[in-house]
Amino acid sequence: MKIGIFDSGVGGLLIAKSIRKLLPQYDYVYLGDTKRVPYGNRSHETILEFTREGVHHLFEKENCAFVLIACNTASAQALKELNTEMPTKKIFGVIHPVVDKCLDYKKIGVIATSATVSSNTFVNEIKIINPKAKVFQNSAPMLVPLIENGEIKNALPFLKEYLKPLINKKIDTLILGCTHYPYLKKEIKNILPKNVTIISQDEIIPKTVKEFLSTHPDIEKKISKKGIAKILVTDKTKNMERLAHKWFGKENLSVVEL
Amino acid sequence: MKIGIFDSGVGGLLIAKSIRKLLPQYDYVYLGDTKRVPYGNRSHETILEFTREGVHHLFEKENCAFVLIACNTASAQALKELNTEMPTKKIFGVIHPVVDKCLDYKKIGVIATSATVSSNTFVNEIKIINPKAKVFQNSAPMLVPLIENGEIKNALPFLKEYLKPLINKKIDTLILGCTHYPYLKKEIKNILPKNVTIISQDEIIPKTVKEFLSTHPDIEKKISKKGIAKILVTDKTKNMERLAHKWFGKENLSVVEL
Repeated sequence: MKIGIFDSGVGGLLIAKSIRKLLPQYDYVYLGDTKRVPYGNRSHETILEFTREGVHHLFEKENCAFVLIACNTASAQALKELNTEMPTKKIFGVIHPVVDKCLDYKKIGVIATSATVSSNTFVNEIKIINPKAKVFQNSAPMLVPLIENGEIKNALPFLKEYLKPLINKKIDTLILGCTHYPYLKKEIKNILPKNVTIISQDEIIPKTVKEFLSTHPDIEKKISKKGIAKILVTDKTKNMERLAHKWFGKENLSVVEL
Repeated sequence: MKIGIFDSGVGGLLIAKSIRKLLPQYDYVYLGDTKRVPYGNRSHETILEFTREGVHHLFEKENCAFVLIACNTASAQALKELNTEMPTKKIFGVIHPVVDKCLDYKKIGVIATSATVSSNTFVNEIKIINPKAKVFQNSAPMLVPLIENGEIKNALPFLKEYLKPLINKKIDTLILGCTHYPYLKKEIKNILPKNVTIISQDEIIPKTVKEFLSTHPDIEKKISKKGIAKILVTDKTKNMERLAHKWFGKENLSVVEL
């Protein structure tokens, strides 16, 4: 069996890469729904439908032992319902592990896609473990297109615009609530006051996966250990292949139908 | 019967609005594939599949007398094959009418999505009617997200970047080769040298539709004349509804399955 990673596109390859760096011995299959990316501005019903199709594919066609939903929008809008629909399967997302890091903060900022912000998932989950914390969200819809088009150099005015209302609230920590945002970590750090801690999923999720495997030896022993990574996409273009190779390495991208 | 307008999203509403302004007497049905927008970075196969589904829907479920594909990417990547597949149906796109305006220019610039540029449709079509013209293309992938997120004020550095290589070639005309770009006409005009003519589809396509109707009286007489416009989308969110109302008016958006 394999470790399944689902994402709306190729942005999740950064997380896949960081997981594989910590746990290189396992076999992975990554599925990016590049035919219908981005999810961040779509409705709940549509995000749930697309994510369900991807997760089903990983369990049924790719024999995955568990699936990580590497996309924040899909985690926020679909994870809960998919766990209810598939009680015997192990599916987890990228939001809960981040929320667990928020115990000691008082004023927590979140930047994310419009769909993640409107789901209120970060706010609701943080309130459960840290009821006294104040959580301030801002959607940052231009960051994904900027990153996907290699326009990091032109991202500054947008970052300033998105971070300003959070800085004004005197946040003590900022969650990068979208799989793509770690690509802008340096630029974000330069804008934030020095005392603000940045919580970035590429640093957290690999440890979550490691811990999951060590606490679930029955699942761990079923996973093949040849160190092979397979990348599946639902649509393939040259630009996307270029990005995937830049972010993950020279793996081949195969196209699948969902 | 109705006049069908297909677009990848809500960007085509600007063209729909300008057509309806010139020809308010007819009944229209607009279909925007907002569930899978944008098309501009997807593969030929995917753009053809999505466009085919949309055009079929307009003919079969909405009783359209003819269909205008208001999206340049879909026109560039799908129109030719759809016309071959459906020889008894009238389908036309937004590229040909623009090309017809290029007879008298010598150095023609085109900005468009990546998929439109890579299709070479503008270049090939212009060469047929004006073989001596030189055509220079540049893809402008950030413009659609900037416009869809209301970030016109931050568009300037991107416009300068995209237009610079075309200005360096001393173009005498610039085609705005994407349905969204007329929203940036003023900003583009300010960057271009004064002698460069801008060709904008919102000014051309309404006349094309009028001419088509006057030269096809058999089709014209079948179209209902109650002045009703219906807007269909494949996914509905608040942000999209806000944009549609801003660009088109307070019409209701109904959701359909393709």
